[in-house]
Amino acid sequence: MAFMTYLPTLTLFGVGSLNNLHTQRIPGKKALVVISNGKSTKTNGSLDKTLEELKTAEVESVVFDKVQANPTKVIVEEGAQIARENGCDFIVALGGGSCIDASKAIALLTSNEGDLWDYVATGSGGKKQAPNNPLPIIAIPTTAGTGSEADPAGVITNEKNEKLGVGDLRLFPAIAIIDPELMKSVPPKFTAYQGFDAFFHSAEGYIGKRANLMSDMVGETAMKNVGKYLERAVKDGSDMEAREHMAFASYLSGIEMVVGSTSSQHSLEHALSAYHQDIPHGAGLIMLSKAYFTYWINKHVCDERFVKMAQLIGMENASKAEDFIVALDKLMKACGVSDLKMSDYGVVPDEFEKMAENAIYTMPGQFAVGYTEMTKDDCVAIYKQAYV
Amino acid sequence: MAFMTYLPTLTLFGVGSLNNLHTQRIPGKKALVVISNGKSTKTNGSLDKTLEELKTAEVESVVFDKVQANPTKVIVEEGAQIARENGCDFIVALGGGSCIDASKAIALLTSNEGDLWDYVATGSGGKKQAPNNPLPIIAIPTTAGTGSEADPAGVITNEKNEKLGVGDLRLFPAIAIIDPELMKSVPPKFTAYQGFDAFFHSAEGYIGKRANLMSDMVGETAMKNVGKYLERAVKDGSDMEAREHMAFASYLSGIEMVVGSTSSQHSLEHALSAYHQDIPHGAGLIMLSKAYFTYWINKHVCDERFVKMAQLIGMENASKAEDFIVALDKLMKACGVSDLKMSDYGVVPDEFEKMAENAIYTMPGQFAVGYTEMTKDDCVAIYKQAYV
Ligand SMILES: [Zn+2]
Ligand SMILES: [Zn+2]
Repeated sequence: MAFMTYLPTLTLFGVGSLNNLHTQRIPGKKALVVISNGKSTKTNGSLDKTLEELKTAEVESVVFDKVQANPTKVIVEEGAQIARENGCDFIVALGGGSCIDASKAIALLTSNEGDLWDYVATGSGGKKQAPNNPLPIIAIPTTAGTGSEADPAGVITNEKNEKLGVGDLRLFPAIAIIDPELMKSVPPKFTAYQGFDAFFHSAEGYIGKRANLMSDMVGETAMKNVGKYLERAVKDGSDMEAREHMAFASYLSGIEMVVGSTSSQHSLEHALSAYHQDIPHGAGLIMLSKAYFTYWINKHVCDERFVKMAQLIGMENASKAEDFIVALDKLMKACGVSDLKMSDYGVVPDEFEKMAENAIYTMPGQFAVGYTEMTKDDCVAIYKQAYV
Repeated sequence: MAFMTYLPTLTLFGVGSLNNLHTQRIPGKKALVVISNGKSTKTNGSLDKTLEELKTAEVESVVFDKVQANPTKVIVEEGAQIARENGCDFIVALGGGSCIDASKAIALLTSNEGDLWDYVATGSGGKKQAPNNPLPIIAIPTTAGTGSEADPAGVITNEKNEKLGVGDLRLFPAIAIIDPELMKSVPPKFTAYQGFDAFFHSAEGYIGKRANLMSDMVGETAMKNVGKYLERAVKDGSDMEAREHMAFASYLSGIEMVVGSTSSQHSLEHALSAYHQDIPHGAGLIMLSKAYFTYWINKHVCDERFVKMAQLIGMENASKAEDFIVALDKLMKACGVSDLKMSDYGVVPDEFEKMAENAIYTMPGQFAVGYTEMTKDDCVAIYKQAYV
């Protein structure tokens, strides 16, 4: 199976690597530093450290601290406005996947006229190529999950509950600093959600039509690391060996987006959290996953790949496709996320039709990855199966 | 262990991918197409196909067909001269590692004044940064070995028998087309030499101080593929599955040069073939390898890594470091390269002092990769041990 690789982001990986930011060729003179609307980067010192590094590099900074989980178009517009008003010529994204995703959209919108949705390629997007180069981005992930530092797409939600990808090869971050030290203070619950996101990026690609030698290498390594280290990182956030391996798994899950692809599980989750913004992306995936992968196991399109995945996450004697669900369930229990319920987030089964339509409409590319067609009825059935 | 990744080459991998060259954004209007001084690309159709693709993309071409194995500075100068005279604004390197390496040096020299050696960073090199951007390069490997399509360095030999790396981050090819179809006609002997080169890139990095999560992933995958597919590719050149996996292993061996490093075995080999230009790089490595790796096994700096390498190339029950030599020997026999002799190439033991000095002088960085210091006397002892 053919593949394409393009990973132009200069990536520094390792504990303490943020300390080397000032030695890099900084792609501008004034940074818009994008952080979340939470407190973490302010209280754990990573914001100060980043601003200090930029100062040492003789670069000015303006902080934009409004990005929420599942970032919205409105926030992107506000960020771009502030970047323009302050004459920022590059973006520093310091935070989780939401923050880096929002930064990509801000980078694009700051240097281009019109509406963000003009440049979205699916759903109700205008499918236009942005005429001007986006601002360069330095991505500094503070969570281990999406791998957004390694890919050129960001997921943004609009006012019509479309959760869509803003993608452009020019949106690969110029520099990524992956410093596991910055992830130390992520609470257990979010460590688990994010770790499972990294896992599913690889698992989805692994059972899809676009799997290839490169995505298999990246995906198998990512899944093995999640299987071996996620539980440890959840149980002891200061276990730096575990944090480092999870940061690596997350980085690989971003590469997986470039050399492989996620699948319709991501579409189904995006529809779910588009209507329920308080569902963390990883939690949404966790809640869908057993029903979703069981659907594919029952298709028997790649049994041996399910066996392999079960082995990768620790079930050495796995021998049939169904074993994957057993192994997955065990990992969820070990990480304390086996009791998540859609009903706890206010989801009601009446929404499933609408969500299934939304999923197929906004992210058709992810559906194309499946070995067989997944219909709207199939989607509704998966939501129902997953519902508690 | 920290690492740095930067892989800005847009890489298309897969059987038939050369047919997609014309659909890419070609980085110029007139190509210097660099091929070897042999017949292969002319007789197997890959040159015609490449020229046809360039024509379809509305790009002019001039062919430079003089690159020898272990390319020399003189040839690079001639290539740059022809590129300048013809107003070529990019390079297409179609061939093996020598051809792609020479193309990088030509790309640098065409757009920069002075002597190529001004821009060499070790040995007698002038250690200068080239003021102008090199010409962009499209790399189309026709062998599976060096992985030169994925890294920013080229090895060139000067008139003083210094075999040195021309390296510059701007020398990453803009585009790489890795089409295993083009490798079908490589004869068994060279298939084996090149495959072992790919293997040693990973094996050397794996037992060195710079090994890290990324280089381990890449290296283990490369070694596993060589262990599983090299013998098949040697025994049946038309076994496209084997060719594809070896092309992948080779690509990874180039990535290994970016995220990890080769070691002093490469320095020792470069010194060997700098004085004996008719020794193919891979053959030189093969002749040195058992003595070289035995040296490290006896140091007991990373026994478990040797066990793992033995397992990766098929010795599933390996349990001690020495097993690696057994497994390596078995693979060499299977690939028909266990009887190579330095004496057959005219090497005499009197040269070993000079070669050891040359190795340390020209490639000190590779020595720095070792867990313990390797002295000149150690080098001489390895050459002697390897000599038959
Ligand atoms: Zn995700
Ligand atoms: Zn080599």
